[in-house]
Amino acid sequence: MKTATIIGLGLIGGSLGLSLKDNNLCEQVLGIEHSEKSARRALELGLVDRIVTMDEALEESDLIVLATPVDTIPTLAVKILNRIRPNQILMDMGSTKQELCEMTAMHPNRGRLVATHPMWGTEHSGPDAAEHGAFKGRTVVICERELSNEDALKAVEQIYSTLGMPIKYMSAEEQDLHCAYVSHISHITSFALALTVLEKEREEEHIFDLAGGGFESTVRLAKSRPQTWAPIFLENKYNVLDVLREHIHQLQILRRMIERDDREGLTEAMQRANTIRNILK
Amino acid sequence: MKTATIIGLGLIGGSLGLSLKDNNLCEQVLGIEHSEKSARRALELGLVDRIVTMDEALEESDLIVLATPVDTIPTLAVKILNRIRPNQILMDMGSTKQELCEMTAMHPNRGRLVATHPMWGTEHSGPDAAEHGAFKGRTVVICERELSNEDALKAVEQIYSTLGMPIKYMSAEEQDLHCAYVSHISHITSFALALTVLEKEREEEHIFDLAGGGFESTVRLAKSRPQTWAPIFLENKYNVLDVLREHIHQLQILRRMIERDDREGLTEAMQRANTIRNILK
Repeated sequence: MKTATIIGLGLIGGSLGLSLKDNNLCEQVLGIEHSEKSARRALELGLVDRIVTMDEALEESDLIVLATPVDTIPTLAVKILNRIRPNQILMDMGSTKQELCEMTAMHPNRGRLVATHPMWGTEHSGPDAAEHGAFKGRTVVICERELSNEDALKAVEQIYSTLGMPIKYMSAEEQDLHCAYVSHISHITSFALALTVLEKEREEEHIFDLAGGGFESTVRLAKSRPQTWAPIFLENKYNVLDVLREHIHQLQILRRMIERDDREGLTEAMQRANTIRNILK
Repeated sequence: MKTATIIGLGLIGGSLGLSLKDNNLCEQVLGIEHSEKSARRALELGLVDRIVTMDEALEESDLIVLATPVDTIPTLAVKILNRIRPNQILMDMGSTKQELCEMTAMHPNRGRLVATHPMWGTEHSGPDAAEHGAFKGRTVVICERELSNEDALKAVEQIYSTLGMPIKYMSAEEQDLHCAYVSHISHITSFALALTVLEKEREEEHIFDLAGGGFESTVRLAKSRPQTWAPIFLENKYNVLDVLREHIHQLQILRRMIERDDREGLTEAMQRANTIRNILK
């Protein structure tokens, strides 16, 4: 592959730029980034070789990658598919997939699109958050592979395999449900936990020393970027609300057991929770 | 110091045994452990030099350390204070302090007790979870230092300083409130999150692949030992219920914003949550 263009040079797009270059997966990596500051920084950091316009990207690229907030991906995808050539490939890296797949379902060039979600991220954002070797060992989900052209699918699978990522295939529905459980709810919980402590801190005018008690690990994700996560929660609204309802229900059960000094019930519930070990392998 | 005895040779007590020995803080470390299997394992792992009875411990020790579940600490403390000699020191390492401090408040030998909470732990338990260098760099809370004799306090401070731990002084009330926020709520949230996923998994008969999405870090604490944590939640019941109420409230606010597609509200709430960065230093 000669040229790839990445649209959106933040945590995910920037890290992909580094990975493509580190693994010699293409000769040059171009970038599109609407923030001038981020564009400049991405060049400084060597995440991409050149900043281009959409016209230039469509002219020069073998592969175009969407790594922008999830609510912008469906529209961008349709507009790019409108103009894509039969030898070019479009791929997205968003955390939700139903809207994208629905919006592109009947597009005559749907076959050029490969819908992917690499399961990697950190609480940091922007070009400076990009990491070498970011995706290694993490699973990537590919949705509705049967709608992608064979050559496009193969090329994208080749890239992720080179990055050391096991591939899972799912429908867009399965992927969004899955991610509500394994990712989106964890972020909501962390945000709520941070707000809980900040609320109390305001009352108490007391600076907590938060090191060591377990708080840091559970609240880490609360540092994540609102501009990334608000669109994810809203795009995946029904799954997220469903999981959130169950999560609040579980918290209320634990609360009632603590209220009633139900030590046996608490112990039993926690023993059940312990079996998450088996799933976390 | 010649001899220390640690009562309870799990994660905390076992790690203290290693730390005392690694730092030459006493010539021999004895252990009391009611599980025969754990006692044997603690010896095999070199966490302590010898398993003793309570009588032997009271006879031989300069320092006795309580590292058992928090609901057993007050009773054990009173019984040991009943028999302690004026040159011996008793110290506890429990995660809650109000009950202990209340139960020992009027004891004529209260001065021999130093009530401490080293802010370190992992989700693992038992002698095999003990770690070298466990406490290094973590804060230790000492409660009601004014009720401990000067020599006892100095000796305990000396130990924690040698282990590289900054010391904070608090009332038992402050410490329990503090820990409800920085530790206990994180554990409850993790347990509830694990139960949420397990509940769904049962419905779906679908094995989630949980790597990479943030789930692992937020659910890590759900592997923690129920026999340790049920007593902590119940001993610190009122603070824990208070924090839990606020946490559920914050989750419900986020839920309503998602329901109403209130992107601005969500973004603003998450931006507020982001300021937790400043507290996490």
